[in-house]
Amino acid sequence: MPIDQTVFRTAMSRLGAAVNVVTTDGPAGRYGIVVSAVCSVTDSPPTVLVCVSRSSGANAVLKENGVLAINILAGRHRDLSIAIAKAAAHERFASGDWTTMETGAPVLDDAAVALDCHVSSVSEVGSHSVFFAEVDAIKVHDEVDGLVWFDRDYQRLQSTASTRV
Amino acid sequence: MPIDQTVFRTAMSRLGAAVNVVTTDGPAGRYGIVVSAVCSVTDSPPTVLVCVSRSSGANAVLKENGVLAINILAGRHRDLSIAIAKAAAHERFASGDWTTMETGAPVLDDAAVALDCHVSSVSEVGSHSVFFAEVDAIKVHDEVDGLVWFDRDYQRLQSTASTRV
Repeated sequence: MPIDQTVFRTAMSRLGAAVNVVTTDGPAGRYGIVVSAVCSVTDSPPTVLVCVSRSSGANAVLKENGVLAINILAGRHRDLSIAIAKAAAHERFASGDWTTMETGAPVLDDAAVALDCHVSSVSEVGSHSVFFAEVDAIKVHDEVDGLVWFDRDYQRLQSTASTRV
Repeated sequence: MPIDQTVFRTAMSRLGAAVNVVTTDGPAGRYGIVVSAVCSVTDSPPTVLVCVSRSSGANAVLKENGVLAINILAGRHRDLSIAIAKAAAHERFASGDWTTMETGAPVLDDAAVALDCHVSSVSEVGSHSVFFAEVDAIKVHDEVDGLVWFDRDYQRLQSTASTRV
């Protein structure tokens, strides 16, 4: 019996995941999207993956540019995340202070972590593309602070004893 | 300049991620590992991915069995997670109450979510294999509760206003 998509979505809402702004720039132009489907793959060579819907405007732009930055968000970026998710494609960088590192993909100045990457391969899986991205440069913020998406809402992660199990 | 692996690992420690016990059973035997590298891929068809080191004993077993269960853990499973991560391969199921659903892979009775899956494809990326797993059956716990790995420690996620941003 096929899995009900609503049940699957509810199940996935319980898989807590960091919130990221994935950006790109290059011949196909600049683009940014809010993504929680980012995952560490291997440290040899340092590689992460990002899942992006094939119906997202970002998909073809990421493929043509071949570079991307993963901006891992901190708790302080909740409103920025909402603003970017709601913004029209040409207004995604109106909020936040943006810079670049090596590839030219936009990097959020105070991201919890910024990973500047080139796309090493892409796997097509159903409705989504999985971008494997090899890391060319890293910037880690001094403050330990994270923003996760869980139960269809934002939650903040901080490195304080009070929030630990 | 190549990325320093220590810096990459620190960066990845700031990417909060749900803690899961990924299990399998079949011709190659039963196995279980604690994994945070699990990611939702697409709901058409319902598919998730799991990254597993090629140096892990689980890797070949997962490939031969071709089935796996992803047991998303709740805050109450912190000690279970530590016990499984530390246990010898043949003692991974000594703690917790285990059952099965469709594929025969061990399912944690009170998992936050259990996803019973078959492996639809595998991509090899550096030191790791990425298992794409199509979901055959789902069980979602009544209580909303999550366990995440962040800043090299466990944190609990609950659906309460007090922990929201």
